[in-house]
Amino acid sequence: MRILGIDPGLRVTGYGVIERAGTRLTYVASGTVRIAERGELPARLKVILDGVGEVIAAFRPDLAVVEKVFVNANPQSTLLLGQARGAAICALVAAGLPVHEYTALQIKQAVAGHGKAHKSAVQEMVRRLLRLDGTPGTDSADALAAAICHTSHAASPAVRAGLRLRGGRLVD
Amino acid sequence: MRILGIDPGLRVTGYGVIERAGTRLTYVASGTVRIAERGELPARLKVILDGVGEVIAAFRPDLAVVEKVFVNANPQSTLLLGQARGAAICALVAAGLPVHEYTALQIKQAVAGHGKAHKSAVQEMVRRLLRLDGTPGTDSADALAAAICHTSHAASPAVRAGLRLRGGRLVD
Repeated sequence: MRILGIDPGLRVTGYGVIERAGTRLTYVASGTVRIAERGELPARLKVILDGVGEVIAAFRPDLAVVEKVFVNANPQSTLLLGQARGAAICALVAAGLPVHEYTALQIKQAVAGHGKAHKSAVQEMVRRLLRLDGTPGTDSADALAAAICHTSHAASPAVRAGLRLRGGRLVD
Repeated sequence: MRILGIDPGLRVTGYGVIERAGTRLTYVASGTVRIAERGELPARLKVILDGVGEVIAAFRPDLAVVEKVFVNANPQSTLLLGQARGAAICALVAAGLPVHEYTALQIKQAVAGHGKAHKSAVQEMVRRLLRLDGTPGTDSADALAAAICHTSHAASPAVRAGLRLRGGRLVD
């Protein structure tokens, strides 16, 4: 099963693709879709729609996971964030993908074992769980973490039980 | 030129299609796309994406106009409204339509001659400008008004000059 994780943001939408076979998770791809800070909103939303669409076309995931976002202190930013997240979700549903949503708390809990884990802890746990040589950037790591979170909720008792690692692999 | 106006809302997205030939405006269609108050957000956004997509496929507009929305007092509502508006815009840009944005103030100013016009005044002016037998509902009227607003900004000096009416038609 191939899972696409999406971390929606105001200007950067992170994505991460993993594959799950049993309890084994494998890294497939990750990266970001960036929109310009200025310019017409519809054109910027199209960048997200097309960018996420290209990721789907390239990596053919079976389902998608999107992080639930927090409202921003600035209402205008909240509105823009909502529109950016809406565009990312539209790319997913337009491709017919089932979409699951988790809060940042759930994702951090699943990946780093603690809902208040720092970004660096999430990055490090993602690196270890997926046996990566380097540490992914924060946006990619958050997207990969969202995908990993779904494996713990949907299928893997090992992950749900607390993400014990041995030699970089999940242990039942 | 066929113009699709969109009035994005939390639960109801209004649409209105008009045709402009010179200064003459003709009504083509209007209606609403409604989303359930509950249920999974991605599925609800898909209703908007598909619903607006069907309107585009049915009426083949040349361009689209979307009302800029205000932030809501409730940040969660602002976030949801942003996602709903993002989905509507995605349907437009996915279809390759140029998208223009106007504030409610600009639209009311253009259609009813006053930025603080009541909803009923907008409905009545839309009815008269498009020579409709009945008064359109508020969501449809707002969407039609957005489309009409663009004709005043884009092309029609008559409308820009203050929307004078004679016998229900625009007067140069």
